[in-house]
Parts: sequence; C-alpha cells; structure tokens
Amino acid sequence: MPRKPKKVKPQGKIRIIPLGGLGEIGKNMTVIEYENDMIVVDCGLGFPDEDMPGIDLVIQDFSYLEANQDKLRGVFLTHGHEDHIGAVPYLLRSINTPIYGTPLTLGIIRNKLEEHVLPWKADLRTVNAGDTVEVGEMSVEFIHVNHSIADACALAVRTPLGILLHTGDFKLDTTPIDGEMMDLVRLGELGREGVLLLMCESTNAERPGHTQSERNVGESLEYIFNTHRSKRIIIATFSSNVHRVQQIIDTSARHGRRVAITGRSMLNIVCAATELGYMKVPTGVLVDINDIKRFKPGEITLITTGSQGEPMSALYRMAFSDHSQVTLGQNDLVVLSASAIPGNEKLVGRIINELSKNEVEVLHDAVVEVHVSGHACQEELKLMQALTKPKYFMPIHGESRHLSANRELAKRMGIHPNNIFLSEIGKVLEIDSAGARWAGTVPAGNILVDGYGVGDVGNIVLRDRRHLAQDGLIVVVATVDLDEGMILSGPDIVSRGFVYVRESEDLMEEARRVALDALMNALEYGNADRVFLKKCMKDSLTKYLYQKTKRKPMILPVIMNL
Amino acid sequence: MPRKPKKVKPQGKIRIIPLGGLGEIGKNMTVIEYENDMIVVDCGLGFPDEDMPGIDLVIQDFSYLEANQDKLRGVFLTHGHEDHIGAVPYLLRSINTPIYGTPLTLGIIRNKLEEHVLPWKADLRTVNAGDTVEVGEMSVEFIHVNHSIADACALAVRTPLGILLHTGDFKLDTTPIDGEMMDLVRLGELGREGVLLLMCESTNAERPGHTQSERNVGESLEYIFNTHRSKRIIIATFSSNVHRVQQIIDTSARHGRRVAITGRSMLNIVCAATELGYMKVPTGVLVDINDIKRFKPGEITLITTGSQGEPMSALYRMAFSDHSQVTLGQNDLVVLSASAIPGNEKLVGRIINELSKNEVEVLHDAVVEVHVSGHACQEELKLMQALTKPKYFMPIHGESRHLSANRELAKRMGIHPNNIFLSEIGKVLEIDSAGARWAGTVPAGNILVDGYGVGDVGNIVLRDRRHLAQDGLIVVVATVDLDEGMILSGPDIVSRGFVYVRESEDLMEEARRVALDALMNALEYGNADRVFLKKCMKDSLTKYLYQKTKRKPMILPVIMNL
Repeated sequence: MPRKPKKVKPQGKIRIIPLGGLGEIGKNMTVIEYENDMIVVDCGLGFPDEDMPGIDLVIQDFSYLEANQDKLRGVFLTHGHEDHIGAVPYLLRSINTPIYGTPLTLGIIRNKLEEHVLPWKADLRTVNAGDTVEVGEMSVEFIHVNHSIADACALAVRTPLGILLHTGDFKLDTTPIDGEMMDLVRLGELGREGVLLLMCESTNAERPGHTQSERNVGESLEYIFNTHRSKRIIIATFSSNVHRVQQIIDTSARHGRRVAITGRSMLNIVCAATELGYMKVPTGVLVDINDIKRFKPGEITLITTGSQGEPMSALYRMAFSDHSQVTLGQNDLVVLSASAIPGNEKLVGRIINELSKNEVEVLHDAVVEVHVSGHACQEELKLMQALTKPKYFMPIHGESRHLSANRELAKRMGIHPNNIFLSEIGKVLEIDSAGARWAGTVPAGNILVDGYGVGDVGNIVLRDRRHLAQDGLIVVVATVDLDEGMILSGPDIVSRGFVYVRESEDLMEEARRVALDALMNALEYGNADRVFLKKCMKDSLTKYLYQKTKRKPMILPVIMNL
Repeated sequence: MPRKPKKVKPQGKIRIIPLGGLGEIGKNMTVIEYENDMIVVDCGLGFPDEDMPGIDLVIQDFSYLEANQDKLRGVFLTHGHEDHIGAVPYLLRSINTPIYGTPLTLGIIRNKLEEHVLPWKADLRTVNAGDTVEVGEMSVEFIHVNHSIADACALAVRTPLGILLHTGDFKLDTTPIDGEMMDLVRLGELGREGVLLLMCESTNAERPGHTQSERNVGESLEYIFNTHRSKRIIIATFSSNVHRVQQIIDTSARHGRRVAITGRSMLNIVCAATELGYMKVPTGVLVDINDIKRFKPGEITLITTGSQGEPMSALYRMAFSDHSQVTLGQNDLVVLSASAIPGNEKLVGRIINELSKNEVEVLHDAVVEVHVSGHACQEELKLMQALTKPKYFMPIHGESRHLSANRELAKRMGIHPNNIFLSEIGKVLEIDSAGARWAGTVPAGNILVDGYGVGDVGNIVLRDRRHLAQDGLIVVVATVDLDEGMILSGPDIVSRGFVYVRESEDLMEEARRVALDALMNALEYGNADRVFLKKCMKDSLTKYLYQKTKRKPMILPVIMNL
C-alpha cells in the first residue's frame, strides 16, 4: 500500500500577548505575532481608579512594541470606543504604523488626533466589514458585529497555523437600528473551516440570558414622549451611541419636537456620524441651543452628555444651575439613557438628587428600559462559541470576575480546561503545530497620564498624594549654622489640610516647641548633618501629633544651612 | 337650640426638626418638641463622601440640642444600626440625657460605649415593643416593625395636638425569622384614632412592589449548601443582621457543618445577641477559627465581616491572602450575603476579582437571592400610609431622590400636596391647631470626625487635602535678610506627589531658578515684606509649572528672616 503523503506542518509560531484589557476595565490591546509579522488589535485608554488621585488617563506600556517596531505591520481597530482607540495618539507619538478601521472609527480618531501634535502624519487606512487586509504572512478580515456604536467589527486573523478570531466588543441584535445583524453566517463559515483560537469579550459573562435589542429603547422613548407631551425632555446618553441618538431624534421628529444638542463630544460625534452617513437628521429638526427659548417645553428635546455624572458635563451644569442656556425646573423631564459605569454610581446619584431637589422629574434605567447594554450576555457568548467551535479559548476584555465567568461558560460548552487560557497583561501564549502553552512575559503595565506628563507619575508620587489627602501636611523649616551648631531662625511650622490652624493654635505652638527641642538636642549631639537634623524633627513631630490627634500628616522637614 | 360647647383646642406648638438623615445617607436624627419638652429620635452617624479625604465619621451639629438641654427629655432609638445609634457616644460627651431603646439596641450601644470615655455614666433605659414612655406633655410608644436587625421599632409620639408617627426603618415581612410580623394592627388602631403627622422612611421609595422576606435568603442558602457539599462555605454579611446569621447557623447545623465566626464586629454582635436571647446556637456547632483545620472543607461554614469590601475586614484579608487562619482556594465558596451600599461597588468588586483570580467560586446577590433589603418598597410604603391615614406627611431617611419618590407616593395616595412637607436638615416644621407651616431654621450640619478630632477639620482643610491629592505639593524656602534686602540661602525646592524628582531634575532646577528670579526682583523692589516675597515666588512658580506640565500643585512658599 502506498504511503500517504505526509502533510507538511507549518513550522512557525503564533504569539498572543494582551497589553491591556485583562483584569481591568478599558485599556484594551492585544498583540498578535506570527514569526516576523506583528499586528496590534485595538489601542484603548483606561480611566484612573480612585487610588490614583490627579491622574487623567491610563495607557499601556508600549515598550514591547517600541522594541519590535520592525515587525509591527499596523494597528487594527474593532470599533470607535475610547477604551479601544483612545491610546492611539499616544502610540503614534513614538511609533509610525498604519491604523486600520471602519469609516466611523477612523472619523472619531481623526477628531481626536487634532488635539495632539505628532512627529508625522498619521497613516489612517479605511476598511469596511467584509474587507481583508494582507499583513505579511497573516491577513485580517473585518466581520460585522452589533454593539453600542455603529461600524463595529470582529477580526479574523488568518495565519499559516490557522484562524484566530478576536470578537472585539459585540452583542447579537436581531432588530438593530441600522438593519444589519451581526454576521453570524461568516462566523459559522469560519467555524466550519476551523478556528484555532477564539479571543472572546467577557463584559457580561456573569449575566444569564440575552442582551436586549437597541430597539427596545426606542419603544420606551415612544412611551415616555407620549406620557410627557407638555414637558421639555432632556436626554443624556453616551455620545458614541449613534443609534441611540438617531432614535431620540426620530422620536422627537415624530412628536413634532425640535432637537437641540449640547456637550462638546455629543456635537463632535453627531457631526462626524452625519457627514459619514451613519446618522440621518430630518431637515428642520435640529435647532441651535440658543434658540430653544422660542419654543414651548413640549416642543423641545435636548440631547446632552453627562450620563455618567461627569462634573464638567452639560447635564451636570444644567442640574447645578450652571449652564448658560438651560435652567431646569418642574416643566422638565430628564432621562438618563445609560447605566452607570462601575465607580460612577455616586456621581450619577448626585445629579439625580440635585434634580429631585429642584422638582425635576427623572427617569433612569432602574425605572424604565431607557438603556440596553452593548455587550453579549451568556446565551450570546455561548452562540459565539457554538458557531466558531474554537480549539483554544481565551476570555478577554473584563475584570477577573468576568474572565472567570467566561471561562466557566467555555467549560460548559465542552472546551477542555487545558485548552482554555486565562491570560494576564504581558503574558505570552505561544501556539505552534504541537499545541499551545504559556511562554513567559514581556514588559507591560500602566502608564499614567497627568496633564502633559506621560509616565512621570508613578507609585511613589501616587503614594505621596494619597498620604497628603489623608491627613494633610506639616512643613517644619529651620535655618541653622551647621559649623557652629546654632539655630539661626525657626523652626517654623506651616500646615495645610491638617487642622484649622486658628482653632488649634495651642497644638501648633506646642508642635513648634517639640520640633525646637528635637533640633536643639540633635545639634548638641555634635557633628549633625542636615539629614540627621531633619530626621530628628520629623520623628518627634510624628510621635507628638499622633499622640495628640491620632493622625499621621506628612511631615516635611527643611533645614536651611548658612 | 342650645349652643354646642366649644371644644377647647390646645394652644401649644409642635416643632419637628431633622438634624440629619435628609438628602444624605445615614446620620439619622429628628428632634420633636412640644412646648417645653423635647425628645430626639435616633442619633446615628454618617460615613464620609469621597470628597472628604481622611475623615473617619460624620456626625450631627449638636449645638441646637446643647442650647436647649433644659428641655431635652431623652433620646429614643428605633433600632441598633450605626446610622441610627452611632453618634450617641459623641452626643453623650456634652449632654447627659436618658437613652431609650429595646434590649438589643442598648446591648449594641453598651459595647460601643466601652470605647469612649464619658464625663458621666450613660443613663440607658430598656423598653420593649408595646411599651410607652411618658415624657412631660408627650408620650412615646414603641411599635414592633420588621427590619434587617432584630428588635426594631416605629415610634408613636402622642402630643396634646395629636399623634406623630415616626416609622424608623421598616419593611413588612409576613414570614419573619423571629415569628413576629410588624404590628400592623397597632398602626391601624393609631390610624383610626387619627395620626397628625407621619414621618416615613424613604430608602426604597423608588422601587416598585414588595421587599422579599428574610426567609427567601434561607431557601437560597439551603440550595447553595445542597449544591456545594464538598466545599468550605464562607459567608460574608452585615454583623447586625442577627436573623441572617441565625439562618446561616441553622442551615449549617442541618447540613452537619461546624460554624466558625471571624471579624471583630461579627463576634461582638453574635455574643450580645446570644446573651440577650435573640440568637440561638445549637450546642456543639460553634468552633474556634483556630480549629477549623481539623475539619474537611465540607464540614465547615465561616461567617465573616467584609461584605462591603472594607479593606481591614476579615474577608478582605482572606481574599488577599493576608488572614492568619484562612487561605482561600478552589475548595472554597464565598457567598456575599449583602448588597453593596452606594459608593462601595468598586470595593466589593475588588474582592470578587481577587477571589476569581484565585479560582474561588463566588456567589453574590446579582446571581442568586442571597440578600434581601431591610427597607419597605413602594407597596409597603403605601400600606403604611393607608393604615395610618396621616393628615400631614414628611418623607425622611434618604437622599433627595428617595424623599421625592416618597412624596410622589403620598400624592398618589391622596394626600394634598400642601400637606406634604419635604424638609431639610435644620428646617423647622411647626404644627399647631391652626395647621402646619415652615418656621425658620436652627443651626445644623456636618461635623467631621478625624482621629481624636471632632469638628477641627472643616471645608478649608478638606479643600487643601483635595488640592494636595490632585497634583501634589511644592515647598519653596528661602532665608533672607529683609533689612538688607539680601538672600542668605535658597530658594530651595522640595516636592511631594508632583513628579518623580529624579526623572525631572531639569524641571525642578529650572523651577528653582524661576523662584530665585522672582525673589530677587521682589527684593530689588525695596521695602518687601514676607507676604509680598511669598506671593511673588508662588505666582511665578504656579505660572511656570502649569505652562510646563499643565498641573497645578499646591505651592507653599516659606521665607525665613534673619
């Protein structure tokens, strides 16, 4: 019997490295390598935790990309949300690489890049769902999915070893506003062909059932508009939710209302989406916010930013009577068409409280279905797995609890636990023809952005900020002649954030005396240098103040030597 | 026809003054006066907002009570939760007045008082549901209600003008664990007699329907124990929820498990409740936490504090592998039998994430009914109104949104809007035979407790702490001879929480030069005093640093004069 010709297995290696988006919210980014070609999927930013005071943004550590620039073939964006594209301008500061994305995604990026100065012109390359981009030995196919922003895609990365499927963020909406359901057929075709690895988002993996259709929100809006004919309606939502804004505009038009738009990001996105044809505004419906006083309350809808309670947003300023064109009162209904992102609950609550105080009616998602999630719940996640039938599975995009829940789903779907890889930021998954395994780590982590500074605030600076916030600060200054061992002036004490000085004069005077004693003792000791003098003053004050107040302010001793 | 004898109307006035618990969470306290008699209902503490860094607790401004000590007849406690009793020790520091409460409430107070030094022995007077206490021209009747702590009461305050009903916190539980449903009959009798004013809690006034029975949690526990026979079960809950703890112990005993208790407050309350007979522990069930290693995982239940994610709690330490007796792993199930109090969502999430990372199974109230609220939902609130048929209505206990929602319920129940009084802290409602009306305000507000300090941290100190946290601090010090207009030493710059100094040496050196230039210019100006020199250095540094970094650290100039 003739021997069957042995099929030649590819010798190369795939490497999958998440640089963000695992065990945290936001900052999504995944590196995919096949031998000498490397691509990056998404490049989002993160928002600071409450233990990062003063920090504006969090981005990825790009050092691994910088070290491998010669292999990098481009960044592929799944959709235009901040946590998927927000760090692109920071990446482009040091690396000039093509950015691939659908028209709306790149439209939002273009807006964003105007605020940054880059050393080169950004190389933005528009693709559409269904398109495939060749990158060295790999190719990347964009596949249409539903999400809370238009023009979102999953990515099928074809390698000599097999297909890697990255879902991006997705949900299954059988009645989407733009008429196009997620491309289940294409996903099924890939599954039939054989998917080597499925990287699947995990945001709602703890939630059973299906995510509701965006169209449900439209039905709620219809009901709200019908039952509030004489009130002005103010709706706050995410500016990037183009379909939501479209539904609000359509409902308003049907009810004979004019629509005014307020909030910088809302205006930006409505303009971009309208220009690109993702939003259609009937003529005559939009009015300038300065003209709304010409209409009765029942003739006006306001669409605004601020659904997360952001203190600088248009809604916040309206609620706290700090908006130049809009004052809210009994004739107004405010609809919060969003849910609070974890951590923002109190901010959102603050707005609802202030509105309630001023007898403004408020509707939010706990009362009526004015918001639906953009992320797949358990049944949709299972459908994704059932269609794509992956050999290996990696949960991505979520906190640890979500990644774990997604792993449990995969187990229930019959994927062997050994074939499920719950990764970490910087951890390398290597796949070759022999199998898949962990293969070390690369540099990865959080880079903090504060004002113009990228990376100049680290753990020590943050620790100091938290310490300062906790109990404030005592500065103790003395001028001495070290050679003579003499105090020339001071010690003086200045405090901030510690106690009301006027009401605690005795305490502060006594503290000064404690510092003086410590300084004199230290000088008598002979041979004292600045470091020793500072330590003596600091230790004695720390002890004295804790004993008197049970507080530990930061104590900053300064010795001036003449 | 003989003239009907004219009924003599009482000439006195009732005054109702909330000193806390309105438009905020916690700090519940209401003053009730009739002429020369005054009582206080509840005396709770509040917890600091995120914009109060370093603050431990928030209590009421007691100055109105201090000014009217001669009229004060006592404090009447509705139940033993911190937000209703926590400020009692602080009140007793300055005012010696009787404290009335049910046995469990006073048992918890006694525990608490041991941590405080008072100028006199606290006068604690035990009452039971059904008892009435005479206080001058008023009397106070304790009426049994259901709540998430045993021994909770509403209070009926009888005055010559009519009955004032204060609900405390309540829910209607037709199948409570202690067998006693809220005393609907007594409430109905009072309603028939005529309630002048109903002060009704508002916590869940936004939620439709009924709050579930505590017994539902027992059924969920039964299910969980049945489906996790081989795992050790760790349950975190509020220590004060005596009935919840009882159910956990009973379920454990039925399943042949021993129970260990950890966390200081949990141990305290279990002891107090057992001593007073509110909790019954079958013999042989409790084991010391040091002995749990002698049992298999399936033979042990741990009851612990930390359901709010508190970083010092037993559960937190277990999750982060910092607990001396318990290390969690794959053989453990953690049940969070509580819901996150608003603002604690991220803390609770942090624990769930850490447990998930270590492959510990976690069940929480979003997944299975392991917690029910202790507060009445809309149908129960309506029932309270329907039974008591008050003439006047005042929503209490809740943020503004909850008070508003409770007001809307009252309107729907047919109370005339003019008879609904949505009060504020310190606002006086006056009722006499002619009607009810607002009558000015009394001093009221937040007193912040930080370490030993009560009230020595105020708005300016907090503002400084927030500023310090935001962008850190720059101290700039120079020693000068003001008479000669000469710089003797410096200016030196010290910074904390601003930037990594080592990586920003150029910036700091340049800043020093900016300060030096400013100081020299100011001295040349002639006649310069310290205030002027400090202002010059501060202004120039503020400008320079903002331009370079887009940050605004606190700048603290110090001039030492020789």
